[in-house]
Amino acid sequence: MPVTRLDTAWIRAARRAIDPVFLDTPLYRCEALEPRLGCAVSIKLETANPVRSFKARGTEWLTSRLAGSASRAVVCASAGNIGQALAWSGRRRGLDVTVVASRSATRVKLDRIRALGAVLELVDGDHERARERAAALALRDGIRLVEDSLDLETCEGAATVGLELVEAAEAFDTVLIALGGGALATGVGHVVKELTPGVEVICVQPLGAPAMTLSWRQRRVVTTDTADTIADGVAGRCPVPAVLDDLLLVADDAVLVREESIVAGMRLLLDHAGLVVEPSAALGIAAVLEDRDRFAGRHVVTVVCGSNVDPDAYHRWVGPAPFGHRP
Amino acid sequence: MPVTRLDTAWIRAARRAIDPVFLDTPLYRCEALEPRLGCAVSIKLETANPVRSFKARGTEWLTSRLAGSASRAVVCASAGNIGQALAWSGRRRGLDVTVVASRSATRVKLDRIRALGAVLELVDGDHERARERAAALALRDGIRLVEDSLDLETCEGAATVGLELVEAAEAFDTVLIALGGGALATGVGHVVKELTPGVEVICVQPLGAPAMTLSWRQRRVVTTDTADTIADGVAGRCPVPAVLDDLLLVADDAVLVREESIVAGMRLLLDHAGLVVEPSAALGIAAVLEDRDRFAGRHVVTVVCGSNVDPDAYHRWVGPAPFGHRP
Repeated sequence: MPVTRLDTAWIRAARRAIDPVFLDTPLYRCEALEPRLGCAVSIKLETANPVRSFKARGTEWLTSRLAGSASRAVVCASAGNIGQALAWSGRRRGLDVTVVASRSATRVKLDRIRALGAVLELVDGDHERARERAAALALRDGIRLVEDSLDLETCEGAATVGLELVEAAEAFDTVLIALGGGALATGVGHVVKELTPGVEVICVQPLGAPAMTLSWRQRRVVTTDTADTIADGVAGRCPVPAVLDDLLLVADDAVLVREESIVAGMRLLLDHAGLVVEPSAALGIAAVLEDRDRFAGRHVVTVVCGSNVDPDAYHRWVGPAPFGHRP
Repeated sequence: MPVTRLDTAWIRAARRAIDPVFLDTPLYRCEALEPRLGCAVSIKLETANPVRSFKARGTEWLTSRLAGSASRAVVCASAGNIGQALAWSGRRRGLDVTVVASRSATRVKLDRIRALGAVLELVDGDHERARERAAALALRDGIRLVEDSLDLETCEGAATVGLELVEAAEAFDTVLIALGGGALATGVGHVVKELTPGVEVICVQPLGAPAMTLSWRQRRVVTTDTADTIADGVAGRCPVPAVLDDLLLVADDAVLVREESIVAGMRLLLDHAGLVVEPSAALGIAAVLEDRDRFAGRHVVTVVCGSNVDPDAYHRWVGPAPFGHRP
């Protein structure tokens, strides 16, 4: 049993605190995808909820623990999904929420953050600049900084996805998890490795934003100068050391996939599963597409982690014949 | 309390027999839709399961009751969704399943029925011809005919959607239900009227396939010569008298919507909820679009009942700029 920062008892406590609208999400075999992938495929769908990603599992747990404390204001940096989730959870509990995001973040994500009543501050530069600015704001104003993947509540919340996977009626051979900051990967990985250690945990990251994967492979923090991927939800450059330590304990592998595989994955999910997903949510399918032999005959489950995507960009990626038949 | 053919105790029994993969489906507020509709909107999502529609609730219940009986073969007529569901449930229980469908039925539905191992027989003409042929086959071969909406199990299975609605934490003012043969409308309507009688039950049918709505309005069976709508899942012409009797007891209203409103509803669900749906599943949104004043300020829940749609047709309807921004 891996000794990560996480504790399954706390993860179970998180599950009791999270609004049920985010829990017990659909988990189902998608046979229509299988001829294209050469393996049995199940989908864990995290998009059918008020914020269209799994991130509210973490923000629900985090904000529930702030209830009764003196902290009535929180700030986070976000590529869009945790910001939206924190805005949702904070609104429900009467917290003042500030979200810092890159000016180049996905527009619908920013629109939703504003619509949910959060203060949105945009910065030039990428997500790492937003992280710096959020930390500076927290320091200046003396408010609670929420750091995705570093704050244990964000990992414990994400880990409740893992509880739902291991409690499923059907057993899986492999769990495919999008890897960004690492909250989802370490959270789900912790639960899977503690409760069903025989199940393989494979993290998937874009080749264009490989910092955490390179770090995992070299067993030390590796940062990159740039992050160049359409998968905005996982486009970090500076892994958090404590999160890497956890990832080293729970991941069986970390793989990198090409942008065209991510697009092909989005297209398969649209054409054969009827699912509109954001690029990060197609990473698992992309990994299978790039290495069919590895997964042949196995039963994989992929966490479809979000669907917040700009319609125009989606059309550009998945088009020009977005719903046309493809080989 | 209405005295329909249905009994809530049996509906609760159905829920215990249905594979959990079809139960406790997502139910969530979709605030991003609300500025466009002028009312609070919740979605009950019946597409995230192995057959991408609610129909397996009925076929699960029906086939579970055949276990141990001498009937090892079943036949049904289908526009595609109940056929797919019966094929899924029958395969699981070792039944021989035959599905009769119109040659003009939605192609992906027919493909999935075959892929699930059912025998598929295609007939010329529309769904009513398929119903006649299925009945003839049952008679000829002495096998069990499954008649959607007439067979109580199909209504009781669909009615479990209603149980999930009335047990939700949040209360609704209005439930919007696609109206075709009537299984979903009478099933959900029965439960809502028995357990939360103050909640309004509104059935929605396409103007081009209005037989059941005209029947409800005139309180007698009205058939039509044609059914002309893209909403293939609800395109019947010959209402079943017993189902109409139930509908008269549970529906507060039955409304007809134009084809362009159905398309506009599909587009809204795609652009603002990230959901690909089949036309029948957009009927509720279409009803709000056609009569915003009626729903202003209310909280409506719409059952998004299926997502089995031909990619090409979807593109044709929702295109030409399928993911472009619209006013």
